[in-house]
Amino acid sequence: MVEQKLRTNLELIHECDNFPYFHDDPLEYQRHIQTYYHLRVSDEPATLGYLLPSVAQVFKGLESWDLDEDDRVLTLTAGHDVETRSAAVAATTAAMRQVGHFKVLQGWRDELYPVFGKGGKHLFDVERSAACLFGVITYGVHMTAYVRSKEDGKIKIWVPRRATNKQTYPGMLDNTVGGGLASGEQPFEALVRECAEEASIPEDLVRERATAVAGVTYFYIRDHRAGGESGMMQPECQYVYDLELPEDFKLKPSDDEVQEFNLLTVEETQAAMSRAEFKPNCALVLLDFFVRHGILNCENEQDYFEITTRTHRRLEFPMPRPPVTTANGTGLCGR
Amino acid sequence: MVEQKLRTNLELIHECDNFPYFHDDPLEYQRHIQTYYHLRVSDEPATLGYLLPSVAQVFKGLESWDLDEDDRVLTLTAGHDVETRSAAVAATTAAMRQVGHFKVLQGWRDELYPVFGKGGKHLFDVERSAACLFGVITYGVHMTAYVRSKEDGKIKIWVPRRATNKQTYPGMLDNTVGGGLASGEQPFEALVRECAEEASIPEDLVRERATAVAGVTYFYIRDHRAGGESGMMQPECQYVYDLELPEDFKLKPSDDEVQEFNLLTVEETQAAMSRAEFKPNCALVLLDFFVRHGILNCENEQDYFEITTRTHRRLEFPMPRPPVTTANGTGLCGR
Repeated sequence: MVEQKLRTNLELIHECDNFPYFHDDPLEYQRHIQTYYHLRVSDEPATLGYLLPSVAQVFKGLESWDLDEDDRVLTLTAGHDVETRSAAVAATTAAMRQVGHFKVLQGWRDELYPVFGKGGKHLFDVERSAACLFGVITYGVHMTAYVRSKEDGKIKIWVPRRATNKQTYPGMLDNTVGGGLASGEQPFEALVRECAEEASIPEDLVRERATAVAGVTYFYIRDHRAGGESGMMQPECQYVYDLELPEDFKLKPSDDEVQEFNLLTVEETQAAMSRAEFKPNCALVLLDFFVRHGILNCENEQDYFEITTRTHRRLEFPMPRPPVTTANGTGLCGR
Repeated sequence: MVEQKLRTNLELIHECDNFPYFHDDPLEYQRHIQTYYHLRVSDEPATLGYLLPSVAQVFKGLESWDLDEDDRVLTLTAGHDVETRSAAVAATTAAMRQVGHFKVLQGWRDELYPVFGKGGKHLFDVERSAACLFGVITYGVHMTAYVRSKEDGKIKIWVPRRATNKQTYPGMLDNTVGGGLASGEQPFEALVRECAEEASIPEDLVRERATAVAGVTYFYIRDHRAGGESGMMQPECQYVYDLELPEDFKLKPSDDEVQEFNLLTVEETQAAMSRAEFKPNCALVLLDFFVRHGILNCENEQDYFEITTRTHRRLEFPMPRPPVTTANGTGLCGR
């Protein structure tokens, strides 16, 4: 058996947060960025995502789109409201799917993802499998379910293995529960649904015990394991939850997306991570879990601050600012 | 009584993490950055901090320093080891203190802070009060001590008020325990010491119950409340700990740095934050606490991801990579 090179935690971060940082090498960053096209919509100044030139070229001459090859900007020119823009995007992506332009569209999901502009304004929706064509931010929920031993206080983590026939990352280890956030979905409600669908966790238990604990953000350049073409941009924001379960509660798959659940010790989880058995973004969410629970700290992790910062990357595209719902109508901290 | 404008959480972030971000406006950022001088040491390519031009000019012609006014670089040319470089820096800062060049040096602490280069190499030490002259990263520990009600599970936080005669931020509210990290100090050992000195928390309790939970990082441009000149750069890395205390445990000041301790509800803490009663970086550490404990989440905070990312800013200067100590010698995740 060939000895496998084990990943450090920093290498695991870099497999997911692999888009270059300006400050690491400003010139190299500029050279890298200049190869991309910027996605915009009419009347909105913000760049919403980066496209590969090979993708941008396909939009040349298409109705509802303007391709500026000098400034490398692709602008959605259709309409001034969510419905009109979304319809134009849907028509374009459906046509591209039909002619078989892009392999990523073979994974068509019939699920819409939202795209936001400056100030969190909802600009349009895009078919999930097409989001990476445009390089826009996508959103998801991730939850780590764990038990804490009454005897020694040690944590064990419920780890599912993805079905071997999944389109993306088949057979890899995953976070306990996770899923994409469709347009209009509330993160916690999506979590409740995914908990039932993926892990047979009753709704009451999730509503009572699951806690929002983090926002994990990173900028991923897709490779072959994501399915379809390599090199497309996928910046992501994950709403992250923890769920402490009773020691005797057992998770079991309730759909065919998950092969099996296993309750792993922290050491077993870390060993599987170092063997690259986890889906890359799940390793990132677990590293954040380890930091928050004191499992990774500055005494055992040389790259502590590199890990804490790169699991919380400030993305360069606008993010949502959903209306907040508070009991007294004024909100937290005086709003 | 004049009605006070209450701060949003995002405004609290911006009072501490107020150095511009490249991506918010690349041209404006470049214009801003170009006003500064870069600190370097001979034979090391990395920029270690930013200096104001008014500070950099004072180094002109000084022994052990080279000021390149064209490229705006201040280079420490003395020696090739920590001792020689540190001695040169000490001689310079002591001389500047003597001639009364800088108000910040009136807060002389006789405490050395470390400065790291590429790969986490320890390059030199600098007097604490002079760190902001050079704009280098400084390190600290912050701990939030809290109790959880057995009845309703609600959290209350132990909040000290700084003595009114403190040099910096007199009379403001603070994190339960906090302090700067001197050269060679281990974060947890510094925390144990500060817990005893500032809050009379016994060593055993801290060692048993305090948990490393976060790295909080931000880039602060100093204002008058920090003492001394305004406009100096202070990028900071905080090693953050939580300590859950028994409900009947009382904190009390053990030195004259702290006026009093009060046990505040989350709502009282948030209200004081919104009235800007907290030292700015303590508000940041508390916002991270609120995120980790589910108190701030995407349902009650519009700027959720702006808060999660800006409390974990990836700084553009090198950070330490301390040797890790692990039980089995191979370290976590296969190292």
